[in-house]
Order: sequence, then C-alpha cells, then structure tokens
Amino acid sequence: MKYSIGVDFGSLSGRAVLVNLQTGEEVATSVFEYPHAVMDEYIPDSSEKLPPDWALQHPQDYLDVLSHTIPDVLKKANVSADDVIGIGIDFTACTVLPVKKDGTPLCFLDEYKNNPHAYVKLWKHHAAQDEANKLNEIAANRGEEFLKRYGGKISSEWLFPKLWQILDEAPEIYEAMDKFVEAADWIIWQLTGEEKRNSCTAGYKAIWHKQKGYPDKEFFKALDPRLENVVEDKLSYDIYPIGTKAGEITEKAAKLTGLKAGTAVAIANVDAHVAVPAVGITEPGKMLMIMGTSTCHMLLGEKESMVPGMCGVVEDGIIPGFLGYEAGQSCVGDHFDWFVTNCVPKAYQDEAKAQGVNIHKYLREKAKKLKVGESGLVALDWWNGNRSVLVDADLTGVMVGMTLLTKPEEIYRALIEATAYGTRMIIETFRENGVPVNELYAAGGISQKDELMMQIYADVTNMEIKISASQQAPALGSAMFGAVAAGKERGGFETIQEAAKVMAKVKDYVYKPIPENVKVYNELYEEYKILHDYFGRGANDCLKRLKKIKARQSQ
Amino acid sequence: MKYSIGVDFGSLSGRAVLVNLQTGEEVATSVFEYPHAVMDEYIPDSSEKLPPDWALQHPQDYLDVLSHTIPDVLKKANVSADDVIGIGIDFTACTVLPVKKDGTPLCFLDEYKNNPHAYVKLWKHHAAQDEANKLNEIAANRGEEFLKRYGGKISSEWLFPKLWQILDEAPEIYEAMDKFVEAADWIIWQLTGEEKRNSCTAGYKAIWHKQKGYPDKEFFKALDPRLENVVEDKLSYDIYPIGTKAGEITEKAAKLTGLKAGTAVAIANVDAHVAVPAVGITEPGKMLMIMGTSTCHMLLGEKESMVPGMCGVVEDGIIPGFLGYEAGQSCVGDHFDWFVTNCVPKAYQDEAKAQGVNIHKYLREKAKKLKVGESGLVALDWWNGNRSVLVDADLTGVMVGMTLLTKPEEIYRALIEATAYGTRMIIETFRENGVPVNELYAAGGISQKDELMMQIYADVTNMEIKISASQQAPALGSAMFGAVAAGKERGGFETIQEAAKVMAKVKDYVYKPIPENVKVYNELYEEYKILHDYFGRGANDCLKRLKKIKARQSQ
Repeated sequence: MKYSIGVDFGSLSGRAVLVNLQTGEEVATSVFEYPHAVMDEYIPDSSEKLPPDWALQHPQDYLDVLSHTIPDVLKKANVSADDVIGIGIDFTACTVLPVKKDGTPLCFLDEYKNNPHAYVKLWKHHAAQDEANKLNEIAANRGEEFLKRYGGKISSEWLFPKLWQILDEAPEIYEAMDKFVEAADWIIWQLTGEEKRNSCTAGYKAIWHKQKGYPDKEFFKALDPRLENVVEDKLSYDIYPIGTKAGEITEKAAKLTGLKAGTAVAIANVDAHVAVPAVGITEPGKMLMIMGTSTCHMLLGEKESMVPGMCGVVEDGIIPGFLGYEAGQSCVGDHFDWFVTNCVPKAYQDEAKAQGVNIHKYLREKAKKLKVGESGLVALDWWNGNRSVLVDADLTGVMVGMTLLTKPEEIYRALIEATAYGTRMIIETFRENGVPVNELYAAGGISQKDELMMQIYADVTNMEIKISASQQAPALGSAMFGAVAAGKERGGFETIQEAAKVMAKVKDYVYKPIPENVKVYNELYEEYKILHDYFGRGANDCLKRLKKIKARQSQ
Repeated sequence: MKYSIGVDFGSLSGRAVLVNLQTGEEVATSVFEYPHAVMDEYIPDSSEKLPPDWALQHPQDYLDVLSHTIPDVLKKANVSADDVIGIGIDFTACTVLPVKKDGTPLCFLDEYKNNPHAYVKLWKHHAAQDEANKLNEIAANRGEEFLKRYGGKISSEWLFPKLWQILDEAPEIYEAMDKFVEAADWIIWQLTGEEKRNSCTAGYKAIWHKQKGYPDKEFFKALDPRLENVVEDKLSYDIYPIGTKAGEITEKAAKLTGLKAGTAVAIANVDAHVAVPAVGITEPGKMLMIMGTSTCHMLLGEKESMVPGMCGVVEDGIIPGFLGYEAGQSCVGDHFDWFVTNCVPKAYQDEAKAQGVNIHKYLREKAKKLKVGESGLVALDWWNGNRSVLVDADLTGVMVGMTLLTKPEEIYRALIEATAYGTRMIIETFRENGVPVNELYAAGGISQKDELMMQIYADVTNMEIKISASQQAPALGSAMFGAVAAGKERGGFETIQEAAKVMAKVKDYVYKPIPENVKVYNELYEEYKILHDYFGRGANDCLKRLKKIKARQSQ
C-alpha cells in the first residue's frame, strides 16, 4: 500500500494529511499551530510596536509544522515512511521572506533578527499600499499590458509592493537578502535543497507570464532605479510549472520530517489553487468557489482571455496545460460576522442561547422559512469593496427595500443573496468574455456547513453545486500533486487527472436549483444588476464621494 | 383672574389644561384614558373579531373625558367655573362617526350597537383602502382639480373613503345615519347643542374648499350613484372658520363639565394644527414640525400655491385669514423604534442596562460623538413610504455606505439624518413653489427630549429651531382659541394673534446651526437628493418592483 502526504500551510497553523493512493482515503491528519501565530504587534524579543497594517510570521514555525505533523500522521496511521512515495505542499500567498544564498532566512541571523523587515510578510500584510498605489499609477501611465491580466490592478498584498516596501524602509535588508522568495518555494527548498519557484505564485503574485516573463527592466527602473535588475538580483527567471517534480527529500530533510531521503517532492502550490483538483476539477468549464471569510473563484480555460475584473490569469497556474483564472469576492463570511456582531438584537441572541444553538444557525433557520423575494430586500455585497468584477476597494455596501416590518433574518438572508448575486455576476462576466462556466463546485468552511447558503447559490446561479467531500481540500490536493511527483512507477500517478480519478472527492449530495426559486431570483438579480452598474460603473459615484467625506471627517 | 380651558383628544386619552389668561401659565392639567382605548379586535359585547386594519373608538369615552378632566383641573387649581370664560377643543382627524339628527351616535342605540360600522372610525382605521384607491382612480380619470391640493392623492384615512366603506359594507348604517361627523365637531355639538363644522377638518379631510366647496355631484355620482347627494344627505355645506365662536355651553353641557352655562365655546380644531399658535406662529414664513412617531409640518401662506407633495392646503385651515399648508413624513420616531427592536446588538442592550440608561439615550450618546459624515452612510427615510414630497406609499428604505466597520450608532445616526434630509426636502420644495419658510419651530415628544436630533435638524436645514415650551401644545392652543371665542369683553382676546402674545411659549434655548456641520451636511444632502430623485422619481423603480415581488411572494 502506497501513500502520499499533503501539507497545507494556513494563516495560523499547518496541517498534514496522509492519503492512501489505492483508495483515496485520508488515513490520518495532524495540525500544528504556529507558535508565533501572526505577529502584528511585536517581533520576538522586541518591545517596539509594529506600525498598523503589518502582519509578519516566523519561518521557524513552518519548519516546526514539518517536524511535528509528518511524524504524527505516520504514527497515527501506523504507516512506515518506506510506503510514502511523495509529498506536496501548499501555502497562503503572497507570503514572502528575504533569505541568504543558502536559503537561510535573514531573521535567523543575529545581525538582522531585530529588524521587522527580516521576517516573513504574510499575505495579509497591508503596509505596502503606498508602493502598490505608485506601482499601479506608473504601470497605468506607461500603458503596461500586464495590468489587464490582473483586472487592472496589482494588489498591495503581492510580491513587488512588499519587496519595494523593504527597499524603501530598510534598504540594508534589501541589500543583505540574496533572494526574496515565496514561503511555499522556501519550504520546497528546505525539503529538496534546491530553489525551484512555482508557476502559480509567480503568475498570480509576481506578474510573471509563461511567454512574456516579468515586466521589463524599464518598468522596474521607472518604479525606482535600484529596482532595474530586481528579478536577477532577488528573484529568479526559472519558474517551474505546478504538477512537476521539484526534487527529492534530502538527508537533512529526512531527519526533519521522518520521511525517507529520496521521497518525491512536488513543486509548491497555493492553498486555494491546489483545492481545484481535490474536488476533481482538471479541465475547463468547471468553477470552484472556495467560500470562507472571502470567496475565491477558480476556473480553467483553454485560451487566455482578458476577463474584466478577475484577480489573475496564469498558464499552468492551477492545472498544468491550462490557463488558470482566479476571481474573488472580498466579503462573504465576514459579512455575516459583521451582521451578527453589529445588528442582531438581544431578543434573538437570548432565544438562540436558550435553544442552545449558534446564532448563525438560529438566523439561518428563520431565514430558511422565508420565500424568495418575500423580504423585498436587495443588497450590494460591497461592505469590503468589490474585487471581481469591478476591482474597486472604494465601493461600500448598499441595501434597498427596508420597511418598518423588516426582520433581522430578512436582512441576513439579503446579505447571503447579495453574495450569491455577486458570484452570478462573476460567472456571467466569464461567460460573456469567452470563458465557459458549465459546472459549479464549492469548498471551504461555508460549503461544509451552510445548507441554506448553498441552496441559495444554486437557485441564484441556476446551477447544480457539488461540494468538496474533504474537510481539508487543500492538503488533499497537495497530496495528489505529491503522488504525481512520485510518478506511476513508484506507485503514484502520471498526471493530476489520473490522481483525481482516485483521490478527488465530492459529496453525494448535490445542491440542485429549485425552478420556482430560480424564476424569482432571475427577477431579483435584474434589480441587483441595475444597482450594481448604477453604483459601481460611474452613473452615481456617491459611494466614493461618501468615502472621501468619511476619510476627511475621520481625521 | 380669568381662565380658559383647552381639551386635546388624542388616540388613547383626552387631556384638559387650564390656562391663566393674564400670565399664560398652565395652571392645571388632567388626563383621562379612554376606557375602550382603540378597538381593533372587538366591539363591546361582541365575540366577532374585526377584520385587519380596523380601528374604532367609543364616543362615550370622549364624553367621559369632558366629565372627568374639566372638573379635575378646576379642583386642582382651586379655580371657580365662574372665572373660566372659554373652552376650545382639538381632536385627532379624520376621526368620524355616524349620528342621528339630534347628534346621538348610532352605536348608542340598541338597534345598531352590534354593528361595527356604528362606531367611531379612528384616524388610523385603514380598512377603506379599496374605496380610497377607487376614488383616486376615478378622480384622476376625471381630471379632478382638487387632487392637486392634496399632493395628488386622497388618503384612505380621510372622510369620503371611510363613509363609502360604510355604504359598501353596511348600507343599513349608511341609511340610518342622518349625519357623518368629525368627532371634533361632535364634541362641539355636545357642548353647544349645535352642529357647527370646522374649516380645518372639512378642508384637510373632506375635500372642502372655501371658494370652490366640495367636489361636484357628478364626481360623487361617478363613485357610486347612491353618493350623488352625499353632502346634503350626510354632511353639511355650512363650514365655520377656526378662530370663531361656535356657541356657548348649554345647561346640559354645564352639568356634564362643571362649566357655567354660557361659557364661550370655540369652533373645533385638529391636534396638529392647533399647536401652531401655541408656539406663537400666527403669520406666514414660520414652519412648525410636530415630531413624534411621524412628523407633521405646518406652514402659513399668503396665497394658495400648488406645492407638490403636500398633504393639503386649506384657507383658514390653521390660522384664520391665511392658507394653511400641511406636509408630512410618515416614518420618524417609528424609525428609531424599528431600529432598536430589530438592529441593536445584545452587547449594546446589556451595556445600556448596566449603565441604567434607556437604549435610545445610550445610542444617542454614542452617535453624538461621531463627526458629521464620519460614518460614510446616507439613508432614504422611506421605511414607511414617503408622504411629502413624493406622496408614494410604495417606496421603501434605502441605505448606502456600509462597511465591515460600520457600527450600530452610525446606522442610528444615519436614520436620524435621513429624516432631517427629508424635512429639508420639504422646506426646499415649499420655497421653490413660492411659499417662504424663514423660521423653524418644533413641538411633540422628540422635540422635547432628543437634543442630538434637534441639533442635526438645525445643522441639516441651516436654520435655528425654536422648541415648544409647553408639554401639551395642542391643549394650550385649544385654550387659546377658547379665549378668542370668549372675546376681549369677557376677559379673553380679540384675535388668535393677541392670544399668542400672552399665551404662546417657546423655550429660551434655541438650536443654532453649527457652521462646520452645515457645510458637510450640504454635501451629504446633495447625495441624498440624487438618491431621492433616482429611487423616487422614476429613474429606477426598483423599490416598487421589489414591493410587488414581495407582495406576490408573501401570499
């Protein structure tokens, strides 16, 4: 019996899963919480507070994940390392760190360990907004074509703004680093002894294109003369497609992990993207929604189309051989948490408590009893701006239709519906721009526990929705890529498609659209669309004007 | 020392006030709650449930108010009835009842007392909507000019729909009644022995015009052939201007009230309208806002202008000799009650309780700390439709600008501001149509207790606001009209203007606009106006479409 291991590095912990390659069964799981968690106030041994919007991590935590969880799953399952033929990993992104030529993180060195810029900048480090703004302005002025591949805007979360921030604020760290590397690729480096960067993070987070490469030197020079040679200085032109083998476990890594030296290691991947094959998607036309605090939409295409408002399109970005499209909604689970914290009356909280049910469940039960359209409410899901398809962080929420009889559960349901309309808008935008969307899949926390929401999504999109059967789709996807890295000869698979046939899982229960609901939601969606375009496409920029007044008055 | 008495008949109780005519002092007050309150489920001795939207009252309760409160104020103040020279009364309207030729209510007669249509139909009896709809349709088709005086629509609350409902549903009651009379005028009838109808309710509630009279017989015939002669059959062509004397207390009424026979009785009035002189307004250019669950705006004009969206314009309707304009907002205090019931989180409720303060006060304290515009929110105050200036009950609420950091107190403040913008819209509409508004006054519960709201109104309108110093402005106003009815010779006043000089009261504290707030509110009001016109004037009728879907789906 052969096995593969997938390790998923999240924002607060890492999780390993051991998978049986004959049956696809997830035999054992182990979670290790990062001892340093997210450092947004202090770095170790420092009393100096970090500025707002910082979010750092400690790379030692990642090594600790490997040394704790891998031996743990082997032990739990009573499986020998001899039978583990491959390993794959996935990471949050863009999560990046400065390292020396040999891969040593700068923060491991006494000389730099007191400098916050020597640590890992986590994906949600938002302190490089100034650099992102300048970059976008310069790119737009120069008419840089790459902007179109990212919905017109490079996020402050991505690699170049973060690297530029270091150059701006800590030039000595910029100078001292030999490489600036995604944590995902750094882990592979630790396991195989070789720096091999993956096409997913390079494409989605570092403006890399398989044919066109990085932006040209003139562009980087226009940002800052010191950045002219940034790619050869700090990054790499060698980018490896996901789905390939990065190398094998070294002796050193064998000691760290308990795996056998020589075990195949896959090229690194990103948590959202690696979940795609875990639900069995390995071909175009099938969209995966990863639904949590925000939602990420993953879709494969045959050819590169410029779809307005997507987060990125990358060849080999999700499944080798295809264009990987990513879109997103910035406010989904967060929306309901906001509502519960700020808008649910005491009577409901007390009643939920008396019944011993979670307040979300309590609200869902009430919301479920409403007929479609009965509330008379329609909302625009822009409480946290709009990522796709408008790419406008300055938009804010809108709700219409309230009366003196409007109940909390009606507002709650309207917020759910608003996110569903937002997803339909994304799907329709893909379709209108030549990228088919024929099937819908969902993974992530919401897909596992919120039946009302999933049914509403099915009704609003008029599409069946299949749900990931794995509670840990990313780790499962990584294990699949580990098995592909090992190859058929060693007992793995030749391709991710073959791995998916055995290992991918969706639940038996499929959410099916209910025709009479679909009909009413079609009407309501028309209203959403009118409001979406009115407030979002320039007819009335009141949301932006109000935001400006707000910014001015909050000072 | 001479005195006058004012009696204010509200929705749940009647209140008498005894006023000193030399000093204007309110010497004593007495309240009597109606034993039958509002009958919206059963009439006395009946187990048959009333249909939805009914609201009846029992006229005996009104007589009981007279027999309890008038002797009570005399006793409390130790004042002899000899020194009371006049009495005035005001009532809710349109509150109407069917009576026999001698004034006996049909519900007092054994023959009819089991028929709900024999009782008083309270102002908020909403079961004549079908009749109102038909009336408006027929009036519009016939191009009836009177519609313009009422903002284009006759309310289901007014006299003809209510009378037509009786004809439709209980023709035997219609047949049996000799008169259909406002409760206000019925009380005067009880006091003086004469039916003398007042110009205020005739004008605002019964489509009467000083020069043009009632709609013509062809119109009534078009409604229903049996209504052709409705005015001579059930109403009266004799309408008396407010501010005049109706008659004197009869021997019978003297026994009922403890007043002396011969005491002067003023023509009846309506609660909102009679409050105008009580704050000292007896000339054009000064608007009074009566702020409670809803807000009523009263304004005097020199000439009759057709201002879009007002509730009515009536000569002698408020102060004799002037055109009385009325406008209204249908959701003010109700708005905040809705919010507190449905949207205030447990944490706030618990903290308010721990501090021992009312939740409204708690929210106001938090909202007060916000700078103007800091919330980024703007709402349209249409949770209960829009009375003025759009006259559209099918409009619903709108709010824009929410983020994941939006707090309950920000929403609460945005709702307050929305009602203030609504008032500014009414003021500007009057001005644009040739009716000046130069000063602003406020009475009613909100004006007495909500400093934050009054300051916001001053800032939004950029006008000083004077506040009624009487807690019972309507009763005081009625007492003033009682003193005018008595006349100067008996120790009263020649005109309401002279009475106002002595008896009207506003507080010393005047709310003054704060220039830096005015500036920002001017910006925010522009946003309100754009949204108001977009959602309210046909550019996007989504609120109405959603309401239709809602109605269809709620069945």
